Amino acid sequence: MRREIEAIPSVTARLLDDGARGIEAAAGAARKARPRFAMIVARGTSDNAGIYARYLIESHLGWPTGLAASSLTTIYRAPIDWRDVLLIAISQSGAGPDILEVTETARRGGALTVAVTNTPQSALAGAAELVLDCRAGVERSVAATKTYVAELTLLAALVSRIQEDDGLARALTGIPAALAAVLGKAAAWIDSNDELIAELSGGDRSLVVSRGYNLATALEVALKLKETAHIFADGYSSADLLHGPIVLAGPGIPLLVMRPDGPMGAAIDGTVAGARRSGARPWLIGGAEVDGRERALLIARELPEALTPLAYVLPGQLLAEAVARARGFDPDSPEGLSKVTLTR
Amino acid sequence: MRREIEAIPSVTARLLDDGARGIEAAAGAARKARPRFAMIVARGTSDNAGIYARYLIESHLGWPTGLAASSLTTIYRAPIDWRDVLLIAISQSGAGPDILEVTETARRGGALTVAVTNTPQSALAGAAELVLDCRAGVERSVAATKTYVAELTLLAALVSRIQEDDGLARALTGIPAALAAVLGKAAAWIDSNDELIAELSGGDRSLVVSRGYNLATALEVALKLKETAHIFADGYSSADLLHGPIVLAGPGIPLLVMRPDGPMGAAIDGTVAGARRSGARPWLIGGAEVDGRERALLIARELPEALTPLAYVLPGQLLAEAVARARGFDPDSPEGLSKVTLTR
Repeated sequence: MRREIEAIPSVTARLLDDGARGIEAAAGAARKARPRFAMIVARGTSDNAGIYARYLIESHLGWPTGLAASSLTTIYRAPIDWRDVLLIAISQSGAGPDILEVTETARRGGALTVAVTNTPQSALAGAAELVLDCRAGVERSVAATKTYVAELTLLAALVSRIQEDDGLARALTGIPAALAAVLGKAAAWIDSNDELIAELSGGDRSLVVSRGYNLATALEVALKLKETAHIFADGYSSADLLHGPIVLAGPGIPLLVMRPDGPMGAAIDGTVAGARRSGARPWLIGGAEVDGRERALLIARELPEALTPLAYVLPGQLLAEAVARARGFDPDSPEGLSKVTLTR
Repeated sequence: MRREIEAIPSVTARLLDDGARGIEAAAGAARKARPRFAMIVARGTSDNAGIYARYLIESHLGWPTGLAASSLTTIYRAPIDWRDVLLIAISQSGAGPDILEVTETARRGGALTVAVTNTPQSALAGAAELVLDCRAGVERSVAATKTYVAELTLLAALVSRIQEDDGLARALTGIPAALAAVLGKAAAWIDSNDELIAELSGGDRSLVVSRGYNLATALEVALKLKETAHIFADGYSSADLLHGPIVLAGPGIPLLVMRPDGPMGAAIDGTVAGARRSGARPWLIGGAEVDGRERALLIARELPEALTPLAYVLPGQLLAEAVARARGFDPDSPEGLSKVTLTR
């Protein structure tokens, strides 16, 4: 797992070089189809990549976006009107029967279908009109890490090319170098931070909070802590946290916060202040505005907020790996999980 | 909280009688507008009602449906194309600034807007073109219970009238009597079930699992356990559970399962079998097919699956109330929460 996390900068570099033509072709097809809505279908880690995609699509393209519930197709046989829909299916293995069936049904129903996968020979890739290949190489660890960041990178590149947004595209070219710098800083922070590891590994509960683009990061880091370290880690939007679950915050409950700069960071601060009043002592991962704050890791200050999820997840992945080992679990092959999960 | 749960059958009766004309008017306007897509905006308990609505809308009307992320409008100012969208805003108080701003923005952008609220004098009700009133009376407990079931009832009635589905409409007329019977059976089960209360109140973690229509129920019962009993209760779709969080299941982790009859119940059984192999001992709430099973509550066998969320949530609400008291918390006014939460 740790080696696969360390490969992420080179994975994104390969993707942006070798994948550029495929991304441009998919973007061209999407521009031509002029969809009115987007739907995303995925499970687990890829579902968190889908949550990132919905923020990208609505903020950059303006298409209302939903996250598909597979059972509506596979079990309830819902008569969904797929015309004018861009369906994005995300799956590292491309093997999930539910994701495949939704993609086939949507394509038959008139959707433009795009598969984002690390397995271009998969049934899913065969079923979709357009395929974006993660080019991440074989992922051996059950907990997906490099394929997650590859999926985010592909989705950001796709949206930037559909919108023909040169700002986002230019920022993307800096991603491999930015992520390499983040990895170095994050590894040093975690490896030397006994208090952080002791807090997280000492209990069996924790809260991971962000909002907006980085809601995906909070959910994905919480999932990694569950899968590898067997912690009841709950990921929340800071706004949703206030509507009830804030009662769980307090002394002895570790609180991780991904805090981007700007208005979203200020909104997240409001919630974190409430958790502090309950006795929580947050750990912050963020940009320039966390400089000088206590218990904070400052990374990726040069990235626009829309690309910070590619960076902020890295310390979370490294942390889950370290906390799993500290708790006596093997992060590379969590008991009871297999790399490919087949659900209908 | 307990008295408000006990009022639910009469609340639904009043709603279906006095509210019929308003529901028909909203349904007529929606049929006329012929939306292509639905978006739902809500927070907390009402967000779980929104998850129920998305299953109802896609399965009965075929409109692809998304759950709006408010921050895209309130913080990122996303240029969302709201034309041909039915926007449903759900809020018992009608006071949330984020829900209001999304509704105003969507209406200006061309969406047909419907507010589902227990406060018809609220700013939200004033902002939406159509208003469905929960008619649930004042809710004093911070943990919403009767307004949740009122929201579900209104949403089911609205969809049945848009579709002009007499089957669903007929089944709805039986809801007040069905819920009264469920309440009696559920209260007797919980009040006499020391093992259930001891298991749930003895730890600080639990899993609540269902799928499809009752994913909303699993999420809402988990939220109630968090708010009132301070338990890290994680609600999951049984399919999502398999993609990672299943590692959390095991001995000493209470597992509640809402299991409808039919193909969805069979799909859920597959996941529950996996959790059993890890040592979990599930408690089942379900229909005719759980008859005779161990640790099972059989209720609402006469309801179509699409209406079971109105029934299956009742034992969960009663349980959260009882577990909170057993753990020494006041379920009526959870510390650190207020009835109306204002987020942007």
